[in-house]
Amino acid sequence: MEVSGYFPIWEQLTAQQQARLAGAAVRRDVKKGTVIHNGSADCLGFALICSGQFRAYILSDEGREITIYRLFERDVCLFSASCIMRSIQFEITIEAEKDAQFWIIPPQVYQEVMEQSAPLSNYTNEIMASRFSEVMWLVEQVLWKSFDKRLAAFLLEEAAIEGSSCLKITHEGIGNHLGNAREVVTRMLRYFQSEGMVRLARGSVELVDEKRLAALAGP
Amino acid sequence: MEVSGYFPIWEQLTAQQQARLAGAAVRRDVKKGTVIHNGSADCLGFALICSGQFRAYILSDEGREITIYRLFERDVCLFSASCIMRSIQFEITIEAEKDAQFWIIPPQVYQEVMEQSAPLSNYTNEIMASRFSEVMWLVEQVLWKSFDKRLAAFLLEEAAIEGSSCLKITHEGIGNHLGNAREVVTRMLRYFQSEGMVRLARGSVELVDEKRLAALAGP
Repeated sequence: MEVSGYFPIWEQLTAQQQARLAGAAVRRDVKKGTVIHNGSADCLGFALICSGQFRAYILSDEGREITIYRLFERDVCLFSASCIMRSIQFEITIEAEKDAQFWIIPPQVYQEVMEQSAPLSNYTNEIMASRFSEVMWLVEQVLWKSFDKRLAAFLLEEAAIEGSSCLKITHEGIGNHLGNAREVVTRMLRYFQSEGMVRLARGSVELVDEKRLAALAGP
Repeated sequence: MEVSGYFPIWEQLTAQQQARLAGAAVRRDVKKGTVIHNGSADCLGFALICSGQFRAYILSDEGREITIYRLFERDVCLFSASCIMRSIQFEITIEAEKDAQFWIIPPQVYQEVMEQSAPLSNYTNEIMASRFSEVMWLVEQVLWKSFDKRLAAFLLEEAAIEGSSCLKITHEGIGNHLGNAREVVTRMLRYFQSEGMVRLARGSVELVDEKRLAALAGP
């Protein structure tokens, strides 16, 4: 499919701007696990996701991770073009969680059109506000919500994304999403199992009482 | 002083846009402690700070607070006009920490000019990216940094803002900045005192060994 079919405000751009973006867009296919953006060292460009799934996360000096947000089909990725704004002063890593296809618009081209086009700039504002809201949600979770609630909410969210109540994920993988050590995850999952909410096996977590998990996760 | 003197990209606006903004701007004076924006219920407008100091914070259901960022003379406040972007989906409170004077541009007027003007929209993007970076810094602090380091960094920052090593602040006030309970603050301050880094008195914390506090706070 053409880049125009994935670009949300395409019809608000001039014919010249459309031609500039479409002419510069590059189609990319990546395998699961590929890192497409790694902190401020990279500036691949503005990404329009055709298929697959991405995870944006931050890393501590000690190698701990926490997931900031996820991106799915038809989402756009602004922070893979972080160099277009000098005020973006943080290091984020973006990785394909599944095999993915996407369009990339080089950062210089995106920036050039954004500087001329109020609609594109306003749209960029909305993307940033939306990611900002996700990060604020995360701040509230980390600050005010206990780990059992966060873990229950994460398991339910994963089950919804995967369309399955049997999740192929390691305890370390869960810890990397939630910013916690593997041991903490294992301890809580064992507690969930003893309460009959999940069933654990090597490399998988099966949700057996989603109702109780939902009640635990809260609103 | 005129609103044009506080508006950072004034000369990039058309004469008509300048007239629209200047004509709608309202000067406000508030006393220390005044809440100028209280979550999504309020939408006062875009604020240009002439003097004073503001604090943006979030509140938990249980009434705990954490400071997200501070605003000083010549800073601008975007989130007091949060209704101009539908993707801003979080509740923030903005309060004067000192008596303050500022210009307010009503949200409808700011939005109207931003929709026409790529420079204003791009500038708004930079403000948002800058606040986003501050929140990401906070996430990293809360997630990866121990409380003693965060408290030491906070005391040094306050001393720099106030230009004094004797801070007039309660333990509860510090807890409200850092998102911790008063008891946790008191315990850590007593430890700092026993180590000779601070001297505690009713309603004040005096920094007596800034070098050691800086070493503790880390890079």
